[in-house]
Amino acid sequence: MSEQSKYNDARVRVRYAETDQMGVVYHANYLMWFEVGRVELLRSLGFEYKQMEVEDGIGIAVVEVSARYRSPARFDDELIVRTTVRAVRSLIIKFGYQILRAADGVLLCEGETTHVVVNREMKKCALPEKYVKALEAMVEGRA
Amino acid sequence: MSEQSKYNDARVRVRYAETDQMGVVYHANYLMWFEVGRVELLRSLGFEYKQMEVEDGIGIAVVEVSARYRSPARFDDELIVRTTVRAVRSLIIKFGYQILRAADGVLLCEGETTHVVVNREMKKCALPEKYVKALEAMVEGRA
Amino acid sequence: MSEQSKYNDARVRVRYAETDQMGVVYHANYLMWFEVGRVELLRSLGFEYKQMEVEDGIGIAVVEVSARYRSPARFDDELIVRTTVRAVRSLIIKFGYQILRAADGVLLCEGETTHVVVNREMKKCALPEKYVKALEAMVEGRA
Amino acid sequence: MSEQSKYNDARVRVRYAETDQMGVVYHANYLMWFEVGRVELLRSLGFEYKQMEVEDGIGIAVVEVSARYRSPARFDDELIVRTTVRAVRSLIIKFGYQILRAADGVLLCEGETTHVVVNREMKKCALPEKYVKALEAMVEGRA
Repeated sequence: MSEQSKYNDARVRVRYAETDQMGVVYHANYLMWFEVGRVELLRSLGFEYKQMEVEDGIGIAVVEVSARYRSPARFDDELIVRTTVRAVRSLIIKFGYQILRAADGVLLCEGETTHVVVNREMKKCALPEKYVKALEAMVEGRA
Repeated sequence: MSEQSKYNDARVRVRYAETDQMGVVYHANYLMWFEVGRVELLRSLGFEYKQMEVEDGIGIAVVEVSARYRSPARFDDELIVRTTVRAVRSLIIKFGYQILRAADGVLLCEGETTHVVVNREMKKCALPEKYVKALEAMVEGRA
Repeated sequence: MSEQSKYNDARVRVRYAETDQMGVVYHANYLMWFEVGRVELLRSLGFEYKQMEVEDGIGIAVVEVSARYRSPARFDDELIVRTTVRAVRSLIIKFGYQILRAADGVLLCEGETTHVVVNREMKKCALPEKYVKALEAMVEGRA
Repeated sequence: MSEQSKYNDARVRVRYAETDQMGVVYHANYLMWFEVGRVELLRSLGFEYKQMEVEDGIGIAVVEVSARYRSPARFDDELIVRTTVRAVRSLIIKFGYQILRAADGVLLCEGETTHVVVNREMKKCALPEKYVKALEAMVEGRA
């Protein structure tokens, strides 16, 4: 196995807009942080998601999402979005996420998203090889 | 029982704000429609969610959510949010959702949320009996 | 003219997602209700905003917005979004808005948006004559 | 006049969730960046907005907002949120904002918000002296 870290950490700070009247973050907002996590994971591999859309004409559409909420995030909390690649094949990609409170490392939320690669007409297509290779190298448990 | 329908249908129309640059609805927005669905299901049973918070001092915190996206919703689509009660116990409630395009009945998204009942201090507590009874009567497969 | 009403009323209900930890609606959400208001005003004139984009290849980009908040909207409030056309010329459209609480008619928020018409390349272009005519007939103070 | 800078710069990166089907950022999202700007300006003065709520029992409710959009922000753009204090009195605070694209310094949006200080019951109250002093020192044109 490699010394290379198998996840990417991104940071976000909770906005007032993201809270609700229960005084904590509204649960749907974690999905946007998952998005931040996978965009930053791709950037850490040298890819810009927007370039995938422009240059390769592909998008990565979400087909499944799940999240388990363990402890609430609150306004102004600094959070770590820890993103891993769970699986990658030419037509499907799975990312895993942990949202941690930066101050004490407490795990607030875990989640997973599954994506299909689509072209500009929203039809399924194959993920170009350069992305497959780079993402495969991130898959947990690979050595 | 019962000819009585075991689900509640609510209607929403897709807002421009809910689309993204892929030209379809951003996936996190479906979770807000699930919220609309369960609020309207409670209203159909004679309960107002805001009154649960004010009068009974309880909230229904989301602890788990999952969604599977089958076909994209688009700007201005009218949608049916079909909500069912999957399970109800004193400490936990599970709702199921189908998002259907009203024009042709096509299923766009399915999901599930799991909730715990919490008091004003965000501690778990029991769901008052009147809600348990009403929700139990909605559970699919009960007769 | 005219007994004809010079505004269009649309209805929205406040979602839990739209509240913040102050216990009221987060102020940016009113801008999305303004959007609902102008889409429904156009529909009342026989136009679908999505068709303007598809058939005429034009969009109506927001270039200016202002809002004054008088009293807070709260979760589950039913609201009236009252929309007027303030001005229309071939290159610019101004809409006015009032957000009223349906239960008692109290004015919660007033606002205005200014739009330019843009083509698919986001360049300014003229609003097709059919829209100009229909919108002009809605302008307040015209007779 | 002082050498002290009279504004605070915060950074945000545009999320995919913040775009709409026009391919640019949906206009309401700039208001959330304004919020990030004023929270970070307060932090630069040694104050945490969340502590104002908890310790002083006050909130800063938005009563007026305006924004002028000059050029669209796009997905993944890094943005500078430049925030100034336009005016401060015991009952009212005005902030000004410029949203600049970090890559080339182009001004994308300008705005202003007006706030009243409210207590936990949402009644107007005076801003504690320590905040008045610190904010006054930020007001443009003061020397």
